[in-house]
Amino acid sequence: MLSKALRSGERVNMTTQTSSILLFPIPSIIYVVHNNVQFYIMNYVDAATYQILGNLKIVTTGVLFYLFLNKPLSKPQWMAIVLLTVGATMSQVKGCGDSVFSWPIQGYLFGILSAFLSAFAGIYTEFLLKKNNDNLYWQNVQLYGFGALFNMLRLMYDFGPLSFLSELTRGFNYVVWLIIANFAFAGLMISWIQKYADSILKVYATSSAMFITAVISIALFGLEPSLQLFLGIITATISLLLYYLPLAPASAAPVVTVRSREKIVGGGSSSSLDEEAGKKNSED
Amino acid sequence: MLSKALRSGERVNMTTQTSSILLFPIPSIIYVVHNNVQFYIMNYVDAATYQILGNLKIVTTGVLFYLFLNKPLSKPQWMAIVLLTVGATMSQVKGCGDSVFSWPIQGYLFGILSAFLSAFAGIYTEFLLKKNNDNLYWQNVQLYGFGALFNMLRLMYDFGPLSFLSELTRGFNYVVWLIIANFAFAGLMISWIQKYADSILKVYATSSAMFITAVISIALFGLEPSLQLFLGIITATISLLLYYLPLAPASAAPVVTVRSREKIVGGGSSSSLDEEAGKKNSED
Repeated sequence: MLSKALRSGERVNMTTQTSSILLFPIPSIIYVVHNNVQFYIMNYVDAATYQILGNLKIVTTGVLFYLFLNKPLSKPQWMAIVLLTVGATMSQVKGCGDSVFSWPIQGYLFGILSAFLSAFAGIYTEFLLKKNNDNLYWQNVQLYGFGALFNMLRLMYDFGPLSFLSELTRGFNYVVWLIIANFAFAGLMISWIQKYADSILKVYATSSAMFITAVISIALFGLEPSLQLFLGIITATISLLLYYLPLAPASAAPVVTVRSREKIVGGGSSSSLDEEAGKKNSED
Repeated sequence: MLSKALRSGERVNMTTQTSSILLFPIPSIIYVVHNNVQFYIMNYVDAATYQILGNLKIVTTGVLFYLFLNKPLSKPQWMAIVLLTVGATMSQVKGCGDSVFSWPIQGYLFGILSAFLSAFAGIYTEFLLKKNNDNLYWQNVQLYGFGALFNMLRLMYDFGPLSFLSELTRGFNYVVWLIIANFAFAGLMISWIQKYADSILKVYATSSAMFITAVISIALFGLEPSLQLFLGIITATISLLLYYLPLAPASAAPVVTVRSREKIVGGGSSSSLDEEAGKKNSED
């Protein structure tokens, strides 16, 4: 797609300074650290708790989004972020013999560290994609290029500098190719979300994917729907509505004049306005 | 307390018209029907589902509050009411072998009916307590007087018209008296909440009581704290904050003039009016 954009003759923004390109391996490096921290967590807690701790990255994404990208979040938006975490967690509760609070403190500390690393990599990627109006596909080439490079180095380390090539496509059938295509499109989509929307929308997309997967599993594999999943979906939906509801604190005290009121009645939907007027009268 | 108020020499409002007094047995009658519906529900569902269905009265209280008392609720307030229901339900999920969705439809229909009856009795009581500025204790005398009367009639039916008196205090020890005193004070408190606040605050008070009971049980009886309870408390807390957060839809350009503002502020409660004005602007 980058080459298509280049051929099209339109002006394509591509920053090729080394100082700019060298910012792109950083997310890959963070993910290397992050992946290793996962094993430390699993060393201390069980699989259910590990999965539940993973939801903390919703809150840490909110915190780092606010701190590093300097985006102020309203009170309802903070509530929405906590609610999404609660909703995601809720749907994962088995309830039967769960012992989420009974692990060594190290397990939780590594869980929190992991949540911050994951969120930081996401926020940093958003910063990279937004910092200039470079073509998205050129940015992707750098982002995923370094990712591929680091993975290739790891394979070379495991299998030897040349024989890793024969290992690379071992056991590939059409299902594997479909999965690869799926991941590739998902990757392009996520870059697109982070450049043109933000990391919070990405968090909502990821959580929605989890809920949709759960619902499809019930439909396809005949699993019994759990109350936890149902409650989780309601909570996450309210969180989404709340986050994107256009709200402002009432403290600003805007008041309408007779003149502007006439203007409004002329313009807007009358039924809801009548309601408003009714309210006003009842409080008189 | 009524007699104290009467002795104090201040003017005490007491409407003694029959047409007014005859409104007070109605909640008692609704509760009689409600209590019988409970047995129909239990006929169809298990104890866990019965308990969980009980939370529906939070939503029905919101709906009837809006319909009968003509109180408009904002979008975040509706979200808060659903969230409180979710939070209360969540804390009751056992998760282990729960089969909340697998009962005959009648069980759910009676559950919904029960939720509406319970909410209607509550909303109607609020209406009764607020419809005039009668002394609260005179209102309580009528409200609980009819309640006591109906219960006495039932006891007379069970034990005979006179011998019920000897049954009345059988087995009473100091613990029973403490419980009675507790219920009496709780009853006064609820009347007070419904007269001076509203049924929604009552719902929050009841839910808080449930969470506080759960937390105290953990502290006193050494029960293991569950993740469900933890998530339920977070959700209910956010619900409470959201419901009472002073919010208005964000307005693109609030129009303020000094003249009209003075007029409106002179008329009613200024904070809620500011909210209304904010809404108006957003519809511009």
